[in-house]
Amino acid sequence: MADPVTLAVSTVIFALRPHPTTRLPVLWTPLVRRIRAPHQGKWALPGGPLGADEGLAAAAGRTLRETTGLTPRYLEQLYAFGSLDRAPSAAERMVSVIYWALVRAEEADAGIESVNVRWFVADELPELAFDHALILEYALWRLRNKVEYSRIAAAFLGESFTLAELRAVHEAVLQRRLDPANFRRQIEASGRLVPTGEFRTGGRHRPARLFRHDESIELADNGPLTGL
Amino acid sequence: MADPVTLAVSTVIFALRPHPTTRLPVLWTPLVRRIRAPHQGKWALPGGPLGADEGLAAAAGRTLRETTGLTPRYLEQLYAFGSLDRAPSAAERMVSVIYWALVRAEEADAGIESVNVRWFVADELPELAFDHALILEYALWRLRNKVEYSRIAAAFLGESFTLAELRAVHEAVLQRRLDPANFRRQIEASGRLVPTGEFRTGGRHRPARLFRHDESIELADNGPLTGL
Repeated sequence: MADPVTLAVSTVIFALRPHPTTRLPVLWTPLVRRIRAPHQGKWALPGGPLGADEGLAAAAGRTLRETTGLTPRYLEQLYAFGSLDRAPSAAERMVSVIYWALVRAEEADAGIESVNVRWFVADELPELAFDHALILEYALWRLRNKVEYSRIAAAFLGESFTLAELRAVHEAVLQRRLDPANFRRQIEASGRLVPTGEFRTGGRHRPARLFRHDESIELADNGPLTGL
Repeated sequence: MADPVTLAVSTVIFALRPHPTTRLPVLWTPLVRRIRAPHQGKWALPGGPLGADEGLAAAAGRTLRETTGLTPRYLEQLYAFGSLDRAPSAAERMVSVIYWALVRAEEADAGIESVNVRWFVADELPELAFDHALILEYALWRLRNKVEYSRIAAAFLGESFTLAELRAVHEAVLQRRLDPANFRRQIEASGRLVPTGEFRTGGRHRPARLFRHDESIELADNGPLTGL
């Protein structure tokens, strides 16, 4: 028989909001200040122990709601961390199943913020509890990879958007400029976008064609696990 | 404090081998017959409880070696399964972290096979223990998705290969014919292949250019977790 393990479920949440200095959109993530030992006073991912009567995704959703007030549309399992040195004491074994969630800026704005719950620029984090700095580094890396081959960027946008708005999301996630003509070609070749037939008008610009993502492609891509 | 959880680590292994009837290459997977209750006599994924002194990936590698004799080059975490109904008794809570591995046919041939360890065609499985049928369905779905956007197919090939050999792997994984000219265009556009400068000669065919994958792209793509 195996030694029992303590299982925690935590969630990395990303939203795009303006950088406090540059005002350009960058990734932000909410963290929770630990109010007890170990690592008391340090910032940590929202999460907590797995409840006896809930599944993994349900635990992620619950702890997110409780700490940040968020109920993201995009909530997906990211990775299970279980190396030997991550429990607070050597006698304990702690495995964390990490979920990740992407929310739009409006959702992030409507969430809870308090002295113990605060949003940080994801590339400018304070010292974090446990191995949460590694977990965040991994989540950022996965997001920056996944934005290249999936419709994940849509989680930051409304139902319909212009190519310029979609490119701005990619640029904010990747933190680099993308050539507009190349971007348009790649997106068109991917076959993931459908024109809505409508246009964004107003301002000093020409009317811009609106697109939506092909809805036959799932936003959170769980295949046979959908609805589990 | 959370209720303790029993944590198991199991691995889905895939290899391409000829189908027993059609002789065309198809995905196979090794399973282990359970020699004790619950689900005694049913086939299950190779795996077992997490040892007190090993990380998750180490547990996957160890149980694989012990049951199948395999030490795959490609071993990656797939998903953590933790729904409430998956433990044998209602009093227990069982979470399984699943890894997946891809091996070449020669490696599969060199593995252990016995009355209690047998390879099956992945789309023609017997009744499986626990929720392992769902886990295998999920792993197949992930593989068939991932082959489209990553260099994962290389795990089934040697160091260098022709475009026709790579296409045969994609066709065997996806179980459908691919147009050779379209396939060549997509692979060239992906920028993932590098010509070795050498050619495969022999047989009745023209010499065929050999390629290898760009080695700056990791086979098992773990980003900041590499070496963990």
